Amino acid sequence: MESEMKGRALSLGLDFGTNSVRALLADVGNGREMATAVHEYETGQAGIVLDPADPNLARQDPGDYIRGTERAVHKVLAEAKKADSTFKKEQIIGIGIDTTGSTPFPVDRSGTPLSFREEFKDNPNAMAWLWKDHTSFAEAAEITELARKEHPEYLAKCGGTYSSEWFFSKIFRCLRMDRRVFEAAFSWVECCDYIPGVLTGNSDPLTMKRSRCAAGHKAMFSSAWGGLPSREFLTKLDPRLGELRGRLYDKTFTSDVEAGRLSGEWARRLGLEPGIPVAVGAFDAHFGAVGAGVAPDVLVKIIGTSTCDITVWPNTDALADIPGLCGIVDGSVLPGFFGLEAGQSAVGDIFNWFVNSIKPGGTAKGTHEALTAKAAKLKPGQSGLLALDWNHGNRTVLVDQRLAGLLIGQTLATTPEEVYRALIEATAFGALTIINRFEEYGVRISEIVNCGGIAERNPFVLRVYADVTGREMKIARSTQTCALGASIAGAVVAGKKRGGHADFIEAQRAMCGVRDEIFRPNSENHKVYQELYRLYLQLHDAFGTKWWSGNMFNVMKDLLAIRDRQRKAE
Amino acid sequence: MESEMKGRALSLGLDFGTNSVRALLADVGNGREMATAVHEYETGQAGIVLDPADPNLARQDPGDYIRGTERAVHKVLAEAKKADSTFKKEQIIGIGIDTTGSTPFPVDRSGTPLSFREEFKDNPNAMAWLWKDHTSFAEAAEITELARKEHPEYLAKCGGTYSSEWFFSKIFRCLRMDRRVFEAAFSWVECCDYIPGVLTGNSDPLTMKRSRCAAGHKAMFSSAWGGLPSREFLTKLDPRLGELRGRLYDKTFTSDVEAGRLSGEWARRLGLEPGIPVAVGAFDAHFGAVGAGVAPDVLVKIIGTSTCDITVWPNTDALADIPGLCGIVDGSVLPGFFGLEAGQSAVGDIFNWFVNSIKPGGTAKGTHEALTAKAAKLKPGQSGLLALDWNHGNRTVLVDQRLAGLLIGQTLATTPEEVYRALIEATAFGALTIINRFEEYGVRISEIVNCGGIAERNPFVLRVYADVTGREMKIARSTQTCALGASIAGAVVAGKKRGGHADFIEAQRAMCGVRDEIFRPNSENHKVYQELYRLYLQLHDAFGTKWWSGNMFNVMKDLLAIRDRQRKAE
Repeated sequence: MESEMKGRALSLGLDFGTNSVRALLADVGNGREMATAVHEYETGQAGIVLDPADPNLARQDPGDYIRGTERAVHKVLAEAKKADSTFKKEQIIGIGIDTTGSTPFPVDRSGTPLSFREEFKDNPNAMAWLWKDHTSFAEAAEITELARKEHPEYLAKCGGTYSSEWFFSKIFRCLRMDRRVFEAAFSWVECCDYIPGVLTGNSDPLTMKRSRCAAGHKAMFSSAWGGLPSREFLTKLDPRLGELRGRLYDKTFTSDVEAGRLSGEWARRLGLEPGIPVAVGAFDAHFGAVGAGVAPDVLVKIIGTSTCDITVWPNTDALADIPGLCGIVDGSVLPGFFGLEAGQSAVGDIFNWFVNSIKPGGTAKGTHEALTAKAAKLKPGQSGLLALDWNHGNRTVLVDQRLAGLLIGQTLATTPEEVYRALIEATAFGALTIINRFEEYGVRISEIVNCGGIAERNPFVLRVYADVTGREMKIARSTQTCALGASIAGAVVAGKKRGGHADFIEAQRAMCGVRDEIFRPNSENHKVYQELYRLYLQLHDAFGTKWWSGNMFNVMKDLLAIRDRQRKAE
Repeated sequence: MESEMKGRALSLGLDFGTNSVRALLADVGNGREMATAVHEYETGQAGIVLDPADPNLARQDPGDYIRGTERAVHKVLAEAKKADSTFKKEQIIGIGIDTTGSTPFPVDRSGTPLSFREEFKDNPNAMAWLWKDHTSFAEAAEITELARKEHPEYLAKCGGTYSSEWFFSKIFRCLRMDRRVFEAAFSWVECCDYIPGVLTGNSDPLTMKRSRCAAGHKAMFSSAWGGLPSREFLTKLDPRLGELRGRLYDKTFTSDVEAGRLSGEWARRLGLEPGIPVAVGAFDAHFGAVGAGVAPDVLVKIIGTSTCDITVWPNTDALADIPGLCGIVDGSVLPGFFGLEAGQSAVGDIFNWFVNSIKPGGTAKGTHEALTAKAAKLKPGQSGLLALDWNHGNRTVLVDQRLAGLLIGQTLATTPEEVYRALIEATAFGALTIINRFEEYGVRISEIVNCGGIAERNPFVLRVYADVTGREMKIARSTQTCALGASIAGAVVAGKKRGGHADFIEAQRAMCGVRDEIFRPNSENHKVYQELYRLYLQLHDAFGTKWWSGNMFNVMKDLLAIRDRQRKAE
């Protein structure tokens, strides 16, 4: 077998994003990205089914995943052919898959999405509940409350609050709002469970290989309490939720495990060889970290509209609960390691808010480019401004979505570029707070690799991050680290014999890398930022915590309470 | 005599502003403004001599005052003729004068400005040191420090800090920076002392009638300690300043006193009858309050780029020092009353900063008109935003120029009009804090009359002020209350016999009024603003005072210290 694969071996990564699916063919020997292709989803608005009456609703048609898989793979094969005439589909030795999440949907006994039935085809509740669907906020609060009272351990690994974006909140909401759909559903699957199931011909909800990453981060799954939350717990929320538990799952798998082999039918549909190993799926951010080279002591920052900050820790070593982290899940990122996930609720979104909503500086002068060029000429502290990066709440370490932004120090001479720079610095202070939290609990960070849109396109942001944190900022070599992470999983399940890799560590060593350009901290600037960071922390603790005597914790809450009341009064 | 004046009696008000002088002829019987004329100063930039190397410097050519008086009076006489053919110059029974201040300048033994000499004509230090000249900040700090140590009573009536804008700071600065000018000066006069002196032919520095208003508010003059600060005190600052004291003044006068009669020479130059009584001068804001109808229990708010908030209190009644007020001076506004002055360092300037410096909303959408129209549609509290009105420091009640702005509560959905409204509300909360401070010390405010550019042109601002304070907001009938106040002074010094008035109270009753339109508080809105005001006060005390345990007083100071250091490092 090994001899057959002499020469090039490729792995196919499929990355199901919010608006499109991307296919990537990567060389398992050196990570070179031979071909890539994107297919945009067709249903709704840029792939998202919206409800004009409810801004919280965001759904997807699972049919888009099926069609998207076919189209993206056909395109990438054509691209590969174009790029290199020696390309042959036989060179593809493995397939890996990542998706957004938590993006669950109801399925029937055979694992077929309910939305494929005529009766449900236009019913958003039968579709996939996209990660950013926030319709379930009341149910999330109920789950959090019950868990705090009866099973605080359920919340200890996911930051202390169960989110409206997560698995059980969404199912509970469906139960309450659309009994027909809930009762027609035999089970619910995550998108990252479903795709490998479909490709391998095993989408039976009871036997398909469910993702550890999805279960651990979004469904309170842990071996410590025997899997999912207890039937008793779910029954207290609603008896029908308790009943459903038996039709969900008890086992989950890391992505070094085969979900199965590519079925004959799907080999035909995709134009691939049958029997290719397909890895168990995972979430995009986690595979993004894999593709960026996450490892013990290495923090991967995926910086886009928000950030995801991921590192790992050997699961053989003791690790305290780290307060304020989004999740600590064994095997969610790399098998054999705890995956540690933190994040900032808004980063690029804050810059976008200033440029697109406040629209400063009149026309043309208020673009990101123009503001960045002017902001870059300022010195740290020169504006007298300081901001908190909480315009969309604080995910880590305060875990409080009901926080808001703050800007202090403005005078009559304050300019738009000064505000823009203060906002960038605020996100850098937020990033430093996350790093410090890791290290306070013994998780050393000796290297930081950045990826995502902001990291790739705005060097000024990384320069500020280096100066604020006093650490080098590296950038992942790949511009599609999620899809590369999926390819790596494909290379791992292919195994050494087929020309792949023995494990993730070996695969990453071969396939990952960073760019030559490294942003190194300027020590003068870092000194000034250390002073500013002390002030940031003072505001952070005063407005974000209750432990401080004379805290101002009430201010943002009271403003929101007044706001919500006044909006309702309309 | 009285019979001669039957029919119309007019009083001429001369209002010397920052960029121009305005002449107003008002009917002393009913306050009707028969004619008005403005002459723009010619020297420097819009009447201000600047120094490109020093943004703190702002001077004026006293020659502009002389030429301006002639031109403005000629124009107003022509206008009066045009407006009413029965007008005769003999109908003018009195002249009143107000000027900016503190705007002092050096004069020789005869009272002639040094800048009129060939040797000094281009030397800014020999010109008038305009109120907003800030070159003397170091000297102001020295005076404050010495007074705090040795004569805290000097500061008790002027808010606890001696300003760089004031009389002695400027003279002290001149002594240090330009010995030749200082030594050539026999004395120094305020602009509002000088003009009446010139018109009445008595500008001898030792005998001219000096303004109580200027002396009390800007030169630490009080009968409580025998007039100006002691020679010993001034000598400690500099022996030559101690020597100068004997060539300044020991007596001051309120504006119901004649400075003298219009001289034959100036009657010819102006085309007026000789012998018309000319009132002792005062500052523009104080006469503005007079023209708006200030009285016990009536607060006049002059709302422009900044505000001046003025009321009066019978000087026969006990009155505590009110901490944080800009000044409490017997007779500075109305004879027989303490004049009480408070103010906000920036109001219109904050709105202008947002519109002109931040330039929100792209072209055309970010004008005051467009933002006001959208902001007016919001409900109180609906945005979740709250701001502090300290972009230019806080004059009353914190008396701290080294404070800065703050905006809290912004989300990713925050719009420019929401920020604009929050800034307007912040100035309203600042206004309420001043009203409360008056009342806490027993000075009742039962009526509020607004004047100035913002009050006249932006009804939405007054609506917010009414809702925030829970009080009616009235608008002065006159759009030139300063010049009207000066006319009133002219009518008072003319006296009843000549067809004028017995005193200011009688003159105001005849000549002042408010517009029909009154802004009344909406009680629903006021309730919401009471909640928001509690939060404003929490921020106010946390960031603006040290008395609160866990205060954040250091934050704005530290930011400014870092800023100043970083700017110097350039």
